[in-house]
Amino acid sequence: MNNKPQTLKGFRDFLPSSMRVRNHVKDVLVSVFQNYGFQPLETPTLEYASTLTGKYGEDADKLVYTFKDKGDREVGLRYDLTVPAAKVLAIYQNDISLPFKRYQIQSVWRADKPQKGRYREFTQCDIDIYGTSSPLAEAELVAIIYQVLNKLNFKKFQIKLNSRTVLYQILELSGIKDGQSSVLQSLDKFDKIGKEGVTKELISKGLEASTIDTLFKYIKEAQPDETLKAVLDAVSLLGVPKEFYSFSPTLVRGLDYYTGPIIETSVEEPKIGSIGGGGRYDTLVKTLGGPDLPATGYAFGFDRLVDVIEELNLLPQLKENNTKVMFANFDPNTLNDSLKLLQELRDNSIASIIYPDNDKLGKQFKYADANSIKYVALIGSDEAKNNLVTVKNMSTGNQETFKQSELINYLSQN
Amino acid sequence: MNNKPQTLKGFRDFLPSSMRVRNHVKDVLVSVFQNYGFQPLETPTLEYASTLTGKYGEDADKLVYTFKDKGDREVGLRYDLTVPAAKVLAIYQNDISLPFKRYQIQSVWRADKPQKGRYREFTQCDIDIYGTSSPLAEAELVAIIYQVLNKLNFKKFQIKLNSRTVLYQILELSGIKDGQSSVLQSLDKFDKIGKEGVTKELISKGLEASTIDTLFKYIKEAQPDETLKAVLDAVSLLGVPKEFYSFSPTLVRGLDYYTGPIIETSVEEPKIGSIGGGGRYDTLVKTLGGPDLPATGYAFGFDRLVDVIEELNLLPQLKENNTKVMFANFDPNTLNDSLKLLQELRDNSIASIIYPDNDKLGKQFKYADANSIKYVALIGSDEAKNNLVTVKNMSTGNQETFKQSELINYLSQN
Repeated sequence: MNNKPQTLKGFRDFLPSSMRVRNHVKDVLVSVFQNYGFQPLETPTLEYASTLTGKYGEDADKLVYTFKDKGDREVGLRYDLTVPAAKVLAIYQNDISLPFKRYQIQSVWRADKPQKGRYREFTQCDIDIYGTSSPLAEAELVAIIYQVLNKLNFKKFQIKLNSRTVLYQILELSGIKDGQSSVLQSLDKFDKIGKEGVTKELISKGLEASTIDTLFKYIKEAQPDETLKAVLDAVSLLGVPKEFYSFSPTLVRGLDYYTGPIIETSVEEPKIGSIGGGGRYDTLVKTLGGPDLPATGYAFGFDRLVDVIEELNLLPQLKENNTKVMFANFDPNTLNDSLKLLQELRDNSIASIIYPDNDKLGKQFKYADANSIKYVALIGSDEAKNNLVTVKNMSTGNQETFKQSELINYLSQN
Repeated sequence: MNNKPQTLKGFRDFLPSSMRVRNHVKDVLVSVFQNYGFQPLETPTLEYASTLTGKYGEDADKLVYTFKDKGDREVGLRYDLTVPAAKVLAIYQNDISLPFKRYQIQSVWRADKPQKGRYREFTQCDIDIYGTSSPLAEAELVAIIYQVLNKLNFKKFQIKLNSRTVLYQILELSGIKDGQSSVLQSLDKFDKIGKEGVTKELISKGLEASTIDTLFKYIKEAQPDETLKAVLDAVSLLGVPKEFYSFSPTLVRGLDYYTGPIIETSVEEPKIGSIGGGGRYDTLVKTLGGPDLPATGYAFGFDRLVDVIEELNLLPQLKENNTKVMFANFDPNTLNDSLKLLQELRDNSIASIIYPDNDKLGKQFKYADANSIKYVALIGSDEAKNNLVTVKNMSTGNQETFKQSELINYLSQN
């Protein structure tokens, strides 16, 4: 082996420092999901290609990794989590009691052009509620979004809500009957290009200036419909502070399959845009091969959350190795004492290691430093004789000697 | 979509009840790994096919899922975690300080014939220590195995240790110079087919009966070499009780690449055999395209652990949904009171839900039952007026009415 192996473009190796952030984000998501009664689900990486393709249009189909397996079956790599969940609902109808609240956090693959923030393998994190049309379902989603972002230390974000019903009513009132989808697509860019940009685009699409004026008038006057009002009321009762969510009549969400309330979350500082979205899709599950069930859901942009946390340094404590103590290895005669005390720390859930080789102490200290391990413990012959241990704090350089029996107490407080 | 979608043979959908066990096993593994100073690593699902093949022989190569991606690159699905880790060590040498203790828990894929307990997609869980030849490294592995199995409620298991050095010395002393690998392969079956079976096989391979007698004499008299003795001593100091590990001179471990101490764990009740194995492989990392580093590691049979726990019902509490309370939804006038109290429970980390629809109460109780939710909370107009809540214990059928402010206290104690 002379050629150094390479990682494929669009794919990532996650070294421990990245993994710590990713694991923390995942832990927070899962703990909130479970607290709100969502249940875990996982589906295979490979599915019959026919399960995956022909669902979201030709453009999407081109991005599905498909190939013939060794049994000559046409198979494909999971493209999203919505289609496999619909498959599960179809196959296990008798094992699942409705309403079914499930979360699913798994990798998906898209044979897309890699670019900053866009990968060929990335993590999706979906929560969905199947089998109920109640507005309480959407309210739960919003409450979860708030809880997750709050626990991840996000300070400036906005959960925007609208409803397809409201949007179609606005179009109706404005007298726009043809090309409704195209108008909505332009409106969807409101946040990015502003009222002026949207107007320009609608004029180029052939709308009269007066119609556009009417459109914006009705947008300005728009109120949540009955369902969305019920959602917003419940969101408030579920403890989400007013400043974190709002009715946003220009919110459209790209996909055609939404049938009711829609949700999108954006981070305002820095202006990185959407970090997740969702909404009600009462006809999609059946279209995808599942049973005829109303459904609503939300997808967290997992990789985006991780990127924001790393960029804004929202969780500085994750930079540190969770290993708190390293025992130096410098005297074979006291090794046994070190091992015993090491195990005591571990038994008290203080993550710790022993440097495995009897290398020069300078090298060992360097290793502790490079791995951001806060304390180095030393037991030499003097310490061993008197059941003592010397502890060096690697950030301050301070060194103290304790009774071994006091070490756990000291470390628990520091 | 008229055809019901199907899951590919050898692949699995994990519904919530399985996921709960899998997640618990993973949580236990990770918490022990971290307590012992191991760091997380993850690598991509797809690699260049050339990274994956030509490493473990032709038979293994046939089992690698390979295909041409849309850019006409020959790629393959991760076959194990050892090769990708060697790749990481090669690429990120400057970012990793040695010794490097990493854990990796990810799916791997093998185009193998599916059968009971053998899947085409399954989870591997590897811990490895790169960059040290110290016997403390193996001792750490053994301590971790004990901790994990103990925390998973395993009662009867045995961690067997041997060393390639011991085995080759036994062969040497017995005068066996030719076909050493073949003899070791037969010896490896000692646990399954006994002394008699091994003898039969060795005779069929052309060994003299007297040579076989000598072989078994030396096996009986075998002692750990210096390194293995150091491992065993450290294991004891790291708190592993004597009855859970032993020197086992008939332990061979199939693979050719081991160079020193070897480890295998088996469950004795029920006799399901190996649930994990590993050992020292000081030359393999380089062979696989990584740097020239001594290494030792252990792989937990993740799916086997899960199977044993489910078969022996070792963790009965996991069968229960972690959702503790369901608020019934039967009076629109008191819905707000229910939502407020629901959120209070969640704020106190008591996982709880509200039934989203105003269905018949019987249906709602059935739902709580089907989902093993222990308590159903009811706030009717009488309760709401007096800040009360009625709680029905679904296992006993008992029903009590409390002040709402007392509910959290009650649930925390029950």
